[in-house]
Amino acid sequence: MTVPHYDGAGRLLQPEGYKTWVHVGVNLGIGYQENTEEPSEPGQFMNVYMQPEAYKHYAQTKRFPEKTMLALVQYKPEEMGSIARSGLMSGKHVGLSFAVKDSSTFKESWAYFGFATREGFRDAAEAFPRQDCYQCHAAHAEDDNVFVQFYPLLRDIYDRRDKTAP
Amino acid sequence: MTVPHYDGAGRLLQPEGYKTWVHVGVNLGIGYQENTEEPSEPGQFMNVYMQPEAYKHYAQTKRFPEKTMLALVQYKPEEMGSIARSGLMSGKHVGLSFAVKDSSTFKESWAYFGFATREGFRDAAEAFPRQDCYQCHAAHAEDDNVFVQFYPLLRDIYDRRDKTAP
Repeated sequence: MTVPHYDGAGRLLQPEGYKTWVHVGVNLGIGYQENTEEPSEPGQFMNVYMQPEAYKHYAQTKRFPEKTMLALVQYKPEEMGSIARSGLMSGKHVGLSFAVKDSSTFKESWAYFGFATREGFRDAAEAFPRQDCYQCHAAHAEDDNVFVQFYPLLRDIYDRRDKTAP
Repeated sequence: MTVPHYDGAGRLLQPEGYKTWVHVGVNLGIGYQENTEEPSEPGQFMNVYMQPEAYKHYAQTKRFPEKTMLALVQYKPEEMGSIARSGLMSGKHVGLSFAVKDSSTFKESWAYFGFATREGFRDAAEAFPRQDCYQCHAAHAEDDNVFVQFYPLLRDIYDRRDKTAP
């Protein structure tokens, strides 16, 4: 499984291959600011992917394994054109963030990283401050800091949980 | 690679595991009627997936291999709620169609199948008549009956093509 790598300063190196990981869901136009370096533009497609091995582990055990990474990939919507009389498709790739579970590196297990800058995507990113992402995920995400309630593939697994389990 | 299977009457058996294939793109609210058994509801998320092996083949050769399947998976949009002040997420899974390239079975190479019925998804589906899907794909899809222009992962590969190639 593709695992997180860091540079000497503790910054996450931009992971590779995330666009072919398991796509757990997509949102459009979420109205809060996840990536502080991007202007708030309602209307972006936000695709969320995780490593196939981490997805399989979650499907089998209902637990996110150590080194789980969730990629948030944002596209600017564009009119489809061609044979479509209406409809929005994904245009330019404009946003890239990662959530990383790595308890041996982060004392709160999860950390969050944004790679988009005005000039493009950088190669390495420091973790966002605690109040920018972690707090909200910890308070509102349904399972282990992950918003499984938003992503159909994870929601389907989560809803099959044994409700009496601890 | 997961390949298409048919029953004795030539109907495509519903493929398995398609939600974890490579997600090549998503559209919202495309305004034409792909699946004749579903009422026209503008606003659905349409996720498109293909087998990982077929995707890899396309990335390497710019050709869709025989037995390529593209899954069209439609979700009803829902307000996200929770911490999102606005935004649409994927709610109920309501549509399921497949495009299949299989020249040994279909004289025009590609055929199209819809699995959604009023009662849910059926186990097997006959191919749509030529005029329902094939004609439009043949006339307007950018590469080998596939609307690569709508799907960022395929568009990125297609746009890297050698423009002087035959």
